[in-house]
Amino acid sequence: LLLPVWTSAINEDIDVLVILPKNNSYLFSISRVTPAIEYARRKMRSDVGLYSGFNFNVHYDNSDCGNEALFNLVDRSCKKKPDLILGPVCEYAAAQVVRMASHWNIPVISAGALATGFSNKEKEYSHLTRVAPSYLKMAETFSAMFHHFGWKTALFIFDDDKEERNCYFTLEGVHNILHSEDYKIDIFEIHPKDYRVDIEEIIKYTYESEVIIMCAGANVIRDIMLAAHRRMFTSGTNVFFNIELFNSSSYGNGSWKRGDKYDAEAKQAYAALNTVTLLRSVKEEFENFSVEVKKATQKAGVYGYEDGDNVNVFVEGFHDALLLYALALGEVMKNGSNKKDGAQITHRMWNRSFEGIAGQVSIDANGDRSGDFSVMAMTDHEAGTFEVVMNYFGINGSIQVLPGFSRERFTLKDRHRNPFPEHPNKSC
Amino acid sequence: LLLPVWTSAINEDIDVLVILPKNNSYLFSISRVTPAIEYARRKMRSDVGLYSGFNFNVHYDNSDCGNEALFNLVDRSCKKKPDLILGPVCEYAAAQVVRMASHWNIPVISAGALATGFSNKEKEYSHLTRVAPSYLKMAETFSAMFHHFGWKTALFIFDDDKEERNCYFTLEGVHNILHSEDYKIDIFEIHPKDYRVDIEEIIKYTYESEVIIMCAGANVIRDIMLAAHRRMFTSGTNVFFNIELFNSSSYGNGSWKRGDKYDAEAKQAYAALNTVTLLRSVKEEFENFSVEVKKATQKAGVYGYEDGDNVNVFVEGFHDALLLYALALGEVMKNGSNKKDGAQITHRMWNRSFEGIAGQVSIDANGDRSGDFSVMAMTDHEAGTFEVVMNYFGINGSIQVLPGFSRERFTLKDRHRNPFPEHPNKSC
Repeated sequence: LLLPVWTSAINEDIDVLVILPKNNSYLFSISRVTPAIEYARRKMRSDVGLYSGFNFNVHYDNSDCGNEALFNLVDRSCKKKPDLILGPVCEYAAAQVVRMASHWNIPVISAGALATGFSNKEKEYSHLTRVAPSYLKMAETFSAMFHHFGWKTALFIFDDDKEERNCYFTLEGVHNILHSEDYKIDIFEIHPKDYRVDIEEIIKYTYESEVIIMCAGANVIRDIMLAAHRRMFTSGTNVFFNIELFNSSSYGNGSWKRGDKYDAEAKQAYAALNTVTLLRSVKEEFENFSVEVKKATQKAGVYGYEDGDNVNVFVEGFHDALLLYALALGEVMKNGSNKKDGAQITHRMWNRSFEGIAGQVSIDANGDRSGDFSVMAMTDHEAGTFEVVMNYFGINGSIQVLPGFSRERFTLKDRHRNPFPEHPNKSC
Repeated sequence: LLLPVWTSAINEDIDVLVILPKNNSYLFSISRVTPAIEYARRKMRSDVGLYSGFNFNVHYDNSDCGNEALFNLVDRSCKKKPDLILGPVCEYAAAQVVRMASHWNIPVISAGALATGFSNKEKEYSHLTRVAPSYLKMAETFSAMFHHFGWKTALFIFDDDKEERNCYFTLEGVHNILHSEDYKIDIFEIHPKDYRVDIEEIIKYTYESEVIIMCAGANVIRDIMLAAHRRMFTSGTNVFFNIELFNSSSYGNGSWKRGDKYDAEAKQAYAALNTVTLLRSVKEEFENFSVEVKKATQKAGVYGYEDGDNVNVFVEGFHDALLLYALALGEVMKNGSNKKDGAQITHRMWNRSFEGIAGQVSIDANGDRSGDFSVMAMTDHEAGTFEVVMNYFGINGSIQVLPGFSRERFTLKDRHRNPFPEHPNKSC
């Protein structure tokens, strides 16, 4: 639909530098993302008359999810600067690379760099386009629910590893939106190294907040839910959310289950838990893509995909990144400019929609992808399994309720009176 | 004493890149620091037989106290890398430059980069030597006083501009030390943009803490002191500190004075205020240096020195930085290596003392300068003037009391019972 048609033949070499971790423990490691980029290149080459004239020369450098990303970019670029950078995903690596690239007028497209700071494109992040929905986009889901269900107060519980800080950045997005809308927010930070977590302290806070929003490891979540259940917080006085963006398909198949003596109790507790996750689409081409990418990844000796899992949003995003870039570059060239015009290429990628590998992709006027999110809840209390009960669509801010939805689970029962004195809510 | 003696003639070109702000509103702007570096070069050239063979080719680049610092370093270094980097001072500029330089094996010496994060030299800041005492060194002054006077609890009040964050980093150092020593610390953060500051809220916290440690603009300090005075906190139930590191010589000449109707009250309030500042020495050569540097700075059209002011610690520090480097390089060359051996040169600068322009400079085994600090207090209640009453010497951790000292002012009177309930002290 949106693909431009060439009137004359094009032959253009484009140097692409992909900066991602070598370490396969990351969902977005070089080995995991390479097949998706190769898929996109093959597709474009075979698209006679459209992008077949673009020759993408792709180089891969290790970001090491840290300073290495910038070092590799700089050391390589002294000889020759790339035309396009894909990645990094990790926030601290991305910040450095995007700054340098913006200074050099090189477009950067990432399926990561999800932290709120990157939304400010006025200066140092001017050349960044994000093809996966940022934490701020995810946060809109909460804003919509708070508005819809009339909640007023929230407690954030998050696990800050002080290194990659995924949960910190995740809840920072939610904080920014809910705070700007004047909801009362308390914050409880867990340092996983200090674990054993002080559950009593958490519970004290829980008395004062209606909605509990958590981002933490599965065991911490389970401990909190068990403690909350024992205090009867799971019977309607509070609404519980866990944010779990990147493993959605493996969620709900027994996260409460450990094979220990608390399983039965945990299953009951988890009946009150809602999980916010990415809404993943399932169009036919995506299935093919997913199968092919998984095959290639496993051939490269990388494991981690279970049967039935689709590839993750990072892998999908970097595929779409190359398409989006080709779209924009095509237009820029048609307008008489070229691949060195990083600012124009970047702005051509913004404020547009295109057909990505998993469905429609909308990039907003600020160069950030709009996001769709799902809320999962336990629908079979016997089996303890979860289903999507609600979807949020970022492009128009709508909430969609599905058959498993029950208004009751999101409606607060008469709240107990607060037995604890007020404490000051300091900003952190 | 420590200067090596050359047995053979040396002729060595050394490329020095100085990365500091062009903007003269910074105490460490290029125009302010240049005369000090020129002074050091002249001195070494004339030191027959010692450093006269070192030809320092000094280039100056604008750090803009931000990202520009790295951009300039990288863009310049693609052609040829410098042998030595002096600066940056601003934390965010320094972090980026020091990382890159450490990666490239280039020594960096700064009279800034004072934040606690830079103390970790194991990885990304491996090549950084700090020739001015860091915030952590300043914090030792508080640790020594807490120990000496038997205080137990502190309230930190600081002004965080969220840009350069000087006060944030200043108190971060104090927090790290006092927290590790198990003192109870409350934190109150002021956002100057939100000013009018909520004095009532601050006062509430003051009830709970013995020692109030502030870092903020002069007007905020005055408002807090006035409010504290009106609540009788200034009569011995609390000890008040203000940290004012870089304008020490202009302090005490009437900071309570505004020419408004509160001056008399403010003078009384300030009788309870103690100011922690750098201990500046006054040896004869420093006076000459200071006069010469000031003359050159004013000739360059930069103002800001009042009569009697000596040059600041940044200007002094960058002078000494060049001496220290020459010392280390001399030894490295004597050992058969050369100016490209950044790691060895760096380590030769650590764990040593040398005669700087203002007196003895001690660099500890971690490459950070030991610091001496003064505590100033009002000694003439009539005139409302301040004097140094106590010194702290970092090299041996000793406290020296001066004639104006009175133990009473640092001794807590029977503290009122806390009329407010306990509140949780969250880490920020």
